Amino acid sequence: MHLGLDTGGTGTKFVLVDADGETVGTGEIPTNPDDPVDSFGYLPNMLNQWQGDREPLVPRVVGLACAGIVDPENLTLGRSPNLPGWEGRDLGAVLRRVFPASGIVLVNDVNAALYGEYRQGAGQGCRDLVMLALGTGVGGGVLVDGKLLTGGHHGAAELGHMVLDPQGPVCRCGNRGCLEAWAGSVALRHRARQAAQGEDDGAADLRRRAQDRGCDLDPRDLAEAAAAGNELASSIYAEAGTRLGQAVGNLLNVLDPDKVIIGGGVAQAGELLLEPCCREARRIVLAEGARETPIVPAELGVHAAAVGACWLAREAEAGG
Amino acid sequence: MHLGLDTGGTGTKFVLVDADGETVGTGEIPTNPDDPVDSFGYLPNMLNQWQGDREPLVPRVVGLACAGIVDPENLTLGRSPNLPGWEGRDLGAVLRRVFPASGIVLVNDVNAALYGEYRQGAGQGCRDLVMLALGTGVGGGVLVDGKLLTGGHHGAAELGHMVLDPQGPVCRCGNRGCLEAWAGSVALRHRARQAAQGEDDGAADLRRRAQDRGCDLDPRDLAEAAAAGNELASSIYAEAGTRLGQAVGNLLNVLDPDKVIIGGGVAQAGELLLEPCCREARRIVLAEGARETPIVPAELGVHAAAVGACWLAREAEAGG
Repeated sequence: MHLGLDTGGTGTKFVLVDADGETVGTGEIPTNPDDPVDSFGYLPNMLNQWQGDREPLVPRVVGLACAGIVDPENLTLGRSPNLPGWEGRDLGAVLRRVFPASGIVLVNDVNAALYGEYRQGAGQGCRDLVMLALGTGVGGGVLVDGKLLTGGHHGAAELGHMVLDPQGPVCRCGNRGCLEAWAGSVALRHRARQAAQGEDDGAADLRRRAQDRGCDLDPRDLAEAAAAGNELASSIYAEAGTRLGQAVGNLLNVLDPDKVIIGGGVAQAGELLLEPCCREARRIVLAEGARETPIVPAELGVHAAAVGACWLAREAEAGG
Repeated sequence: MHLGLDTGGTGTKFVLVDADGETVGTGEIPTNPDDPVDSFGYLPNMLNQWQGDREPLVPRVVGLACAGIVDPENLTLGRSPNLPGWEGRDLGAVLRRVFPASGIVLVNDVNAALYGEYRQGAGQGCRDLVMLALGTGVGGGVLVDGKLLTGGHHGAAELGHMVLDPQGPVCRCGNRGCLEAWAGSVALRHRARQAAQGEDDGAADLRRRAQDRGCDLDPRDLAEAAAAGNELASSIYAEAGTRLGQAVGNLLNVLDPDKVIIGGGVAQAGELLLEPCCREARRIVLAEGARETPIVPAELGVHAAAVGACWLAREAEAGG
């Protein structure tokens, strides 16, 4: 039995897999972003509900995926905007208190999602992959010869903070022109709000939609407006998609992977985002053979990172 | 005995190493950029000059480094602006005609230079390295866990063609805003020519220097002018260095290597280029631990690629 956990700012998704690799259960529990101890305490009881009268569940290895910069050796979390109270905490000790007999693996959440896609999603059959996850921010993952690239200082695959234009919009990290400042959902909301202040019909339509929603438009609302023919909304996605394509094209020139996987909520806009992305990426790629590298949507959905963390837990056990 | 060759547009450098890894000889022969057969024909005779009366030299493996996109399996060269007549040619067959009893290894020239630096230069002791070679164009190399990253379509490590601003200057590849369009020597010459048309003292100084030289100023002239206090010349290097820093910062965010090595003729400007590069790169890096990653000049000079090709030849033999 192995357990994969994926902790974000609001909840922890989990996937439980038996010895044959079959998924026994999936679910979500609330997370306390200020205190990891608080977040996992009642997980064993909850898992045991599946067991009925049988022996309590003891996962052999628990894989925990977290947003932020992860130190997999010391099982600690560095900079993590979504989990401020978890920064610097010994997550190995926290999990060992809950699962004293289990091994522990810690991994960055987008790395885990990429590993999930590699093992049972859009990346199956490839050994070299790049993933961009367009959520609130933009996270990344890089797989080289079947191994996640974590870097000499746990700083690799921070793909959302490649600077695509030093004069570009301000990013949440404080720099200007990061990919995230165009293609994360915070950036899209901001652009939608700006665009709605315009004078043309498209802007009026966006204002009407925001009024109906009673709040700012999110990327999904914007995609709906675009699908209904609002060209202003389409142009915001075209800009985000083109910048995403610049990043993907650069990554093809650096890494030349077998496939690029685009995941996260913003990617649910589909072709609205992917079409300009592919066009721009292909324009930038130098090596002819790399020009047709597939750029595809993620397949595993919201449980990708928990699935990947579970795979990494299984393989950590197999590897020693 | 192993032979490392590095073929550029004008000449082929060679390094000959004996069974103990000692360098027996280095040198350069002319290259015919339109015909590889023509280029290697008299190499064996030349090598045998070192031998005097002894047996003719038969390298066990010949490592050939070439500028351009290399297919190491088929021993062919793809797109190669400096060696147009070599594109698509079976370089394995060409070399086998000259060295019928030797194994052949083909590698991109900057990859080979990086491998040389890794084995006996600035990258010794590191397993994860990035190299940028600022020559006529800008080439790149990426080493992950002691292996050169070549990519699924021989398109990896084309670091000079990362797009740093889609509105930037036109690059030789046809795109806009590639690193090469700021930090290659063609780009610096162009900027020097533009700058010399100005009205201030700095421009007048550049015009005077170009007149004395009887031709356009090259990066070395520009560095001399900067060293003599010409602020316009310094500002051109500052711009190139800052863009180089943007590229390096992005690469630190993608790969987080142990060290970044800057080589090539343009890099001989030293701190004039490296100081703004380091400043910009460190501003961009997200992971705190990666912020102090050393960004250092290459150490092996013009023979780096031939040395690296020789090491790869030796290791190809050892590996099978």
